[in-house]
Amino acid sequence: VHGGAGAAPTTRQVRWFAAAALGLAEVARRLVRAGLRRPRSVRRKADRTLVTDLDIAIESRLRALIGRRFPDHGIVGEEAPPVRPESAYQWYIDPIDGTTSLVRGLPLFGTILGLHYRGRPLVGVIDLPVLGHRYHAALGLGAWRDHRRLRLRDVSRAGVADEIIAASNRPLFARFGAARAFDRLLREHPRVRGYGDCVAHAWAAEGSVGGLVDFGVHRWDIAATRILVEEAGGRFVIIGERGRGAGATFGILAGRPGVVRWLERRFG
Amino acid sequence: VHGGAGAAPTTRQVRWFAAAALGLAEVARRLVRAGLRRPRSVRRKADRTLVTDLDIAIESRLRALIGRRFPDHGIVGEEAPPVRPESAYQWYIDPIDGTTSLVRGLPLFGTILGLHYRGRPLVGVIDLPVLGHRYHAALGLGAWRDHRRLRLRDVSRAGVADEIIAASNRPLFARFGAARAFDRLLREHPRVRGYGDCVAHAWAAEGSVGGLVDFGVHRWDIAATRILVEEAGGRFVIIGERGRGAGATFGILAGRPGVVRWLERRFG
Repeated sequence: VHGGAGAAPTTRQVRWFAAAALGLAEVARRLVRAGLRRPRSVRRKADRTLVTDLDIAIESRLRALIGRRFPDHGIVGEEAPPVRPESAYQWYIDPIDGTTSLVRGLPLFGTILGLHYRGRPLVGVIDLPVLGHRYHAALGLGAWRDHRRLRLRDVSRAGVADEIIAASNRPLFARFGAARAFDRLLREHPRVRGYGDCVAHAWAAEGSVGGLVDFGVHRWDIAATRILVEEAGGRFVIIGERGRGAGATFGILAGRPGVVRWLERRFG
Repeated sequence: VHGGAGAAPTTRQVRWFAAAALGLAEVARRLVRAGLRRPRSVRRKADRTLVTDLDIAIESRLRALIGRRFPDHGIVGEEAPPVRPESAYQWYIDPIDGTTSLVRGLPLFGTILGLHYRGRPLVGVIDLPVLGHRYHAALGLGAWRDHRRLRLRDVSRAGVADEIIAASNRPLFARFGAARAFDRLLREHPRVRGYGDCVAHAWAAEGSVGGLVDFGVHRWDIAATRILVEEAGGRFVIIGERGRGAGATFGILAGRPGVVRWLERRFG
């Protein structure tokens, strides 16, 4: 049905991959919603972040489904080692991005799925199971929230002050040497809110926040963000990188082009 | 059916007021949800905050319903002048708290209703129409999210670092001379998130955030917060006041007792 991992994907294939990714997101959403009704076991990983049995169960199910449907594709996920790293097609999975929020009872978490071809994003999905919205984008096919197409209006330099800017936790900035830039941002801009994780990325893609700055994110945390924001007409920039390979972490900006350019002058 | 405004309310009356407040919240939720499907006119008020035709329509409807059902009760609302300020019973209304979020398409706004008797809260409701939860409390009758009773577990001093702390916008702190305390909080605590408005107050009452610090709030913004948090077993403290009468604004702390005590040492 689809070409081997060597041939560049056609639009028809991209559509098919997007439909597959949306199907996987639906599976994840059902597992999350069922999981929320049961008690969870929570433990702290070596990097001090939280993981629940639900994170692991969802990633394992998604890996099995991808492996069956796309046996020549690679998979990179937060909770298990990469498989088939040599494949031109790589799926990125973060089963629950925002585990702290889930554990505390906040609705601000979701599932991230991304398919990249030779390092470039083809398809991205962020599913927010409690907020009840699914964001997806595919190369050349636009960005969508559920059935509504997302189109980011740009803002002038003067309009930046009226936009909400999402910034994740200060300690994440500090680890990248960006604590002073964080402090300056909060002094300079009147509407900085502490939104992080895939929820903030989805909001930047729809424009409910004008832009975001996030540090310490892994490949799977941003596997859907670039294509969602770019297909919506926004701008996505990597402004920092620490470490290598699967453990590498990044600093990113994303959102309306004018807001991202304004942020680049402070973080770039 | 109920005693005159002079006699202290019985438990039976408190129950009846709580039922009335929940009915008003349901009316507000229906108006908000219908309003979200229509285009809105937005304008900036003299204090630079936003108001929509929806805010005004909801407050006007709630005022009419309260006036018909409790003709001897006073009403204080964000969008119109107080009525019957001499009454022992005062209803506080904020039809849409978090208008900026509503206008941008973020689900982080809600309706606040509070009934006070001689300055002390009897009943409080925070309705979050998009997140789909209604929080309410009544004096001596507990705090509830929908049909689930809220009981805040306390934390030790060592446990404070694991809690999420919600802090509203830095400019609101700066206007109260608390900008340095805000900056220190973000350096000292690893999980400060920029959540404000009634959503943060509701989350503090259920414990999904351990505590919150908020500045620049009016009487109607906090009319439900004290009773929600206290009936859930938490602590509520006013830490600052500017101005007088209906225009007065406050700084507040609320949440698990141990978290609020920790915050008091920084903001008290």
